[in-house]
Amino acid sequence: MAGRSADDDDRSGTVVTPSAEFPPLDPAEVDALRRVGAQWRTGVPPALPVDPTLDRYRSRPAPGRFSRLAPIALFRPEPGDRGRRDGLVAAEPANRPDSRLGRRLGRVRRAVLGPPLTSAAVLHERMRKLVALPVLSSDLLSSVAYGPEALLTVLVLAGSGALGLALPLSAGLVLLMVAVGISYRQTIPAYPHGAGSYLVAGDNLGVGAGLTAAAGLMLDYVLTVSVSIAAGLHAITSALPGLTPFAVPLGVLVILLLLAGNLRGVRAAGNIFVLPTYAFVVAVLGLLVVGYLRAAGRGFTPVAPPVVPAAEGLGLLLVLRAFASGAVSMTGIEAVSNAVPAFRPTEWRNARTTLAWMVAMLVVLFAGLTLLIHLAGLVPRPGETLLSQLARVTFPTGPWYAVVQATTALILLLAANTAFNDFPRLLFFMARAGHAPRRFLHLGDRLAFGNGLVALSGTAIMVFVAFGGHTEGLIPLYAVGVFLAFTLSQSGMVVHWRRHRDAGWRRRALVNGVGAVLSGLVLLTAAVAKFTEGAWVVVVAVPLLVLLFHRIHRHYRNLHAALALQPPPTGGGPGARPPSVAGGPGPPAAVPEHGPGSVEGEELPQELRHLVVVPVVRLNRASMRALAYAVSLGRPTLAVHLAPEDAEADRFREQWRAWGDHVRLETIVSPYRAVIGPLAHYLAALHAAAPELVLTVVVPAVVLRRPWHRLLHSRTEQRLRRALRALPGVVVTSIPIHVPE
Amino acid sequence: MAGRSADDDDRSGTVVTPSAEFPPLDPAEVDALRRVGAQWRTGVPPALPVDPTLDRYRSRPAPGRFSRLAPIALFRPEPGDRGRRDGLVAAEPANRPDSRLGRRLGRVRRAVLGPPLTSAAVLHERMRKLVALPVLSSDLLSSVAYGPEALLTVLVLAGSGALGLALPLSAGLVLLMVAVGISYRQTIPAYPHGAGSYLVAGDNLGVGAGLTAAAGLMLDYVLTVSVSIAAGLHAITSALPGLTPFAVPLGVLVILLLLAGNLRGVRAAGNIFVLPTYAFVVAVLGLLVVGYLRAAGRGFTPVAPPVVPAAEGLGLLLVLRAFASGAVSMTGIEAVSNAVPAFRPTEWRNARTTLAWMVAMLVVLFAGLTLLIHLAGLVPRPGETLLSQLARVTFPTGPWYAVVQATTALILLLAANTAFNDFPRLLFFMARAGHAPRRFLHLGDRLAFGNGLVALSGTAIMVFVAFGGHTEGLIPLYAVGVFLAFTLSQSGMVVHWRRHRDAGWRRRALVNGVGAVLSGLVLLTAAVAKFTEGAWVVVVAVPLLVLLFHRIHRHYRNLHAALALQPPPTGGGPGARPPSVAGGPGPPAAVPEHGPGSVEGEELPQELRHLVVVPVVRLNRASMRALAYAVSLGRPTLAVHLAPEDAEADRFREQWRAWGDHVRLETIVSPYRAVIGPLAHYLAALHAAAPELVLTVVVPAVVLRRPWHRLLHSRTEQRLRRALRALPGVVVTSIPIHVPE
Repeated sequence: MAGRSADDDDRSGTVVTPSAEFPPLDPAEVDALRRVGAQWRTGVPPALPVDPTLDRYRSRPAPGRFSRLAPIALFRPEPGDRGRRDGLVAAEPANRPDSRLGRRLGRVRRAVLGPPLTSAAVLHERMRKLVALPVLSSDLLSSVAYGPEALLTVLVLAGSGALGLALPLSAGLVLLMVAVGISYRQTIPAYPHGAGSYLVAGDNLGVGAGLTAAAGLMLDYVLTVSVSIAAGLHAITSALPGLTPFAVPLGVLVILLLLAGNLRGVRAAGNIFVLPTYAFVVAVLGLLVVGYLRAAGRGFTPVAPPVVPAAEGLGLLLVLRAFASGAVSMTGIEAVSNAVPAFRPTEWRNARTTLAWMVAMLVVLFAGLTLLIHLAGLVPRPGETLLSQLARVTFPTGPWYAVVQATTALILLLAANTAFNDFPRLLFFMARAGHAPRRFLHLGDRLAFGNGLVALSGTAIMVFVAFGGHTEGLIPLYAVGVFLAFTLSQSGMVVHWRRHRDAGWRRRALVNGVGAVLSGLVLLTAAVAKFTEGAWVVVVAVPLLVLLFHRIHRHYRNLHAALALQPPPTGGGPGARPPSVAGGPGPPAAVPEHGPGSVEGEELPQELRHLVVVPVVRLNRASMRALAYAVSLGRPTLAVHLAPEDAEADRFREQWRAWGDHVRLETIVSPYRAVIGPLAHYLAALHAAAPELVLTVVVPAVVLRRPWHRLLHSRTEQRLRRALRALPGVVVTSIPIHVPE
Repeated sequence: MAGRSADDDDRSGTVVTPSAEFPPLDPAEVDALRRVGAQWRTGVPPALPVDPTLDRYRSRPAPGRFSRLAPIALFRPEPGDRGRRDGLVAAEPANRPDSRLGRRLGRVRRAVLGPPLTSAAVLHERMRKLVALPVLSSDLLSSVAYGPEALLTVLVLAGSGALGLALPLSAGLVLLMVAVGISYRQTIPAYPHGAGSYLVAGDNLGVGAGLTAAAGLMLDYVLTVSVSIAAGLHAITSALPGLTPFAVPLGVLVILLLLAGNLRGVRAAGNIFVLPTYAFVVAVLGLLVVGYLRAAGRGFTPVAPPVVPAAEGLGLLLVLRAFASGAVSMTGIEAVSNAVPAFRPTEWRNARTTLAWMVAMLVVLFAGLTLLIHLAGLVPRPGETLLSQLARVTFPTGPWYAVVQATTALILLLAANTAFNDFPRLLFFMARAGHAPRRFLHLGDRLAFGNGLVALSGTAIMVFVAFGGHTEGLIPLYAVGVFLAFTLSQSGMVVHWRRHRDAGWRRRALVNGVGAVLSGLVLLTAAVAKFTEGAWVVVVAVPLLVLLFHRIHRHYRNLHAALALQPPPTGGGPGARPPSVAGGPGPPAAVPEHGPGSVEGEELPQELRHLVVVPVVRLNRASMRALAYAVSLGRPTLAVHLAPEDAEADRFREQWRAWGDHVRLETIVSPYRAVIGPLAHYLAALHAAAPELVLTVVVPAVVLRRPWHRLLHSRTEQRLRRALRALPGVVVTSIPIHVPE
């Protein structure tokens, strides 16, 4: 709902409902509604000329011109309480589009995405820990495939001699992983309904912090897709160098496949994650075991790396850059805290255990790989990933090299899917709080957030193509957004503990504080050390995004305030209004005392006074139909004709008299030949002369069946509607005219 | 008017009227109108609640919210016959746009194009011969600047030895010029209202021939702009080679300047043509005199041209190509025949004399230049035009070279303006006959055919840029279109003489026949010999354009037939219809006996029966206003709510009861969460259940002031309107809701 602040949202947590687009009224609004309703005078409502329940017609299923189906079959009665019927339920065919092209596209869509799912199919599926672990950890674990390499790629700039620094830096990263892991471990029981950084930071540090975290996360999700897919393709091209030139189109294809899969609703089919993730872990563990056995055979003597000349001096900045680059191995660590409600009960306990396993596996894989790379004396080189080199050295023969590469590629491509899960959900929560466009609230007919998915895919494809599919180029952008969200989330937890002051809150606050400080340090390191490399993009983009979110929120808030129901002023109470005007074409009653402004608010039907205006260009069936419609409303009617010359005006008046002069005609000579402008100004003048009137402009609109025919028409109806949109109290009624062609 | 054939058009000839957009009714239509009117029953029309003449309010000029002006001052009474007032006249400010951006753009437009001109300012200015000559001949005479060069450029492909063929070919071209000139000389008195190829061919050979000529002419006009400007720039870059890299942007700039000038109405300011054209003629004549004096000093011995190796053999095809290329010197010869009504009386006699002068000057300049180039032994080379080379050789010192180049450049750039005059007029005549979009009938506020001018400039810029501004590349395309129009026009004249059989018709038919045959031969030569060089584009484009014109015509004809007034069927005469329904909200009368089809035609107001449907998403001021509007119409009203879930539907019904249940509510649960589709299908079902009803759908439309805010809304109103457009008998009424932001 538009007017609500982010603080309200943790109550509803991460529960996604199809009704989020239709929020309930506030009690104040219901009260206003009641008071407005009490003042309505509708007289005796005329009987409906057709049964709206379609009951009477259900027996004779005549084919509809619109749907080419028996139209009645599209709707069935909604079963109400105690056997009473409440309304109708639309059957699935009622969603199908009307046009031929639309129906064809609909069939393609159905073939690709599957048949629509009803709201009742919203699954709140619960995951066992053994399933949750691979589903939620693919992003985190997959990043060990590029994390160590990112670290070494920076270090090697200072020559092969600097590679020795990799071990102490990795030790620092492991400490960081453990600290952040413990920190998140504490967050989970505190936010059992979902502990995304946006919610936690917004809840504890205020809307601005929440939006900043959200901006960081949004960038992070986009980059997760790009980086994971780039790394996955790099794993493939390392094994099959012939595919290298096709990396960019292949990456776009993978993103589109992920989009299609998610639009179809891959989410429910989380099982596809189980095998690849475990296979990857097993493959890397196998690699580590064999590798360390071989190293043991050499007495753990490191192989001397090839001599690489130093391109830069070994300064503090370089070391910090290397550290920040390696820190991307930690992306995805917060996936569990987002997904707490998806665990089986007791949710928070299972989630916490899963997180601990995940961090442990991360530490083992990351530390093991970094040390083994050091022992094997490998250095990053373009064209082949470090993991691929390591696998080649470790498994010179046999299929094991291929297994390692295949599982790596698979898990990296699947890791991108994490962003496809979380990005639309984040937008949903933001939209619910009025910080993102409301269209992100809409659950599509497959129960997927189609708009969010498309937004993510589009942005990710743009980034991926712009960077030519190179992982390294994207990593500087990556670390800043991730650690921004970490820092805000952990800081928020510190505030949370301080506020609640449960038993042991000091210890917990300390743990989260340490997490926050460490994350903050990495954030600073990444932003400063990699500023010129591209991190400045994030530093600039985050505030702009936050500004945008604020602007969006302001718009919705203002709109909500303007549209919220307010009781009518009690000054001219119901007695003071002339109820005789209601629903009759009688003589105009006394003008109620209110200015033009009140036309825009809610009004009482008995107060509305009408003037129907029919612009007539030429007397033909279209204008006759518009005139007949206008007259049949039984309200005062005025026809207006615009003529480019006096002679034409005279000619038109003559035709009008030939017709019988049934409607009062006003001709306006427009000596500058414009039609829309003078007509709009004339209506504005009428409105200024009688501000209490509602001017209903009845315009015939020829419905053209072929799009190119639009070029042959001046589309007066559309232009007039656009020109009149700014005028208060002017209602435009379009009379469609269907021509047989 | 749409339904009229091209045959009707020569009656109105080349007279351009602002009322062409508002053609009068046929007598049959007036008769139908009278009979329709006789069956209308409107009852006693309710008195208007406001004076439509704005008379009563004229004394108090309140500032309007829309115009920021006293709205009343925008309209003044139209002075009618015998002092009686007939209608209103819109003052100039009534044309100004309403939005702030629109007002700003309007000021810029006004500064560039000048203040608007009233219809009364349509000038039928008449030209003296001495003025007409330069105005109408700039296109024709300027083409000698590139015609001889085009000829020699082809010949030199066969080596410098082939250049000697230039003289006999030129002699042939001179003969052609004289023949075509005499041929057109005869056309002028026969078509004193304007003898454009489109009109002459259409009048005598049928619509297809007229359209074919029109297609050729349209291509010709586009190419005239491109070729003249390319040649003019080549004259400039020959003198100032430093400008060569900027030729393309300079050309685009010149086209835009010509566009702006013509939108402003350069047409009336024909005097700007006088000086450059005469200056060019004088400069070239000076060049010829000095050149021949120098040649006489050598005893008229030709200087041997530099040896150029042959790139192709000297075959018949090459000679024909050279001839066809040289024939572009004749483009613009028909300008006089288009403009007969612009001469002073006796128009045709003055026009004929002017044409004779023009052809004589063309022959002198063309033959003189070709011979002198031969004597000077010059060959075409890239980078510098032949005329520039000749001027350099003839005037080695002194300012004369610069004068020749400057006048050449100027006349070439002005020559493009001929197309700016004729192209929109051609489209106007085609649009009047229903063969081109009706928007080309519209005289803009500067009395210029803005749409035609923009279409010409846009196409010319595209061609110019696509060919990189190279004249030579465009010439093959050029000759085909020009001689297609010549051939059809002359053939048409032969038919014309045969039909009328005036005194001496055989001689006249023979002259035009010779012109037609010669033009046809050049057309064939150009099309065949230059087919692979690019003429195939024209050969393909002309039939496609003619097909397009036919399609356009068919659309307008069908539309006109569908919308033309027809008297109502006499079977159920006025007595059989229930007049009691007229204009009252009383109980629904018996359903008249007619199917759903008749809803689309003209209807009688007493026959219309209403059901007002208000889709309500959420109860707020917007929906309250829509409901109040609907109820105030006093017709049966039904509210429809679409809910994504049963729970939401229940909640909404509860709110509805809290409001007071003033309107019958039908809820439709849309379990697939779509709104538009089920609503449209529900309305289709209602329509199928009661086809005689007119369903008026009342939709609130929030008016957003900033364009980017549209991204924040799902634009339900627009989407609903689009979905409902296909439904017969469904009228959409938009209630604008203005929010303060």
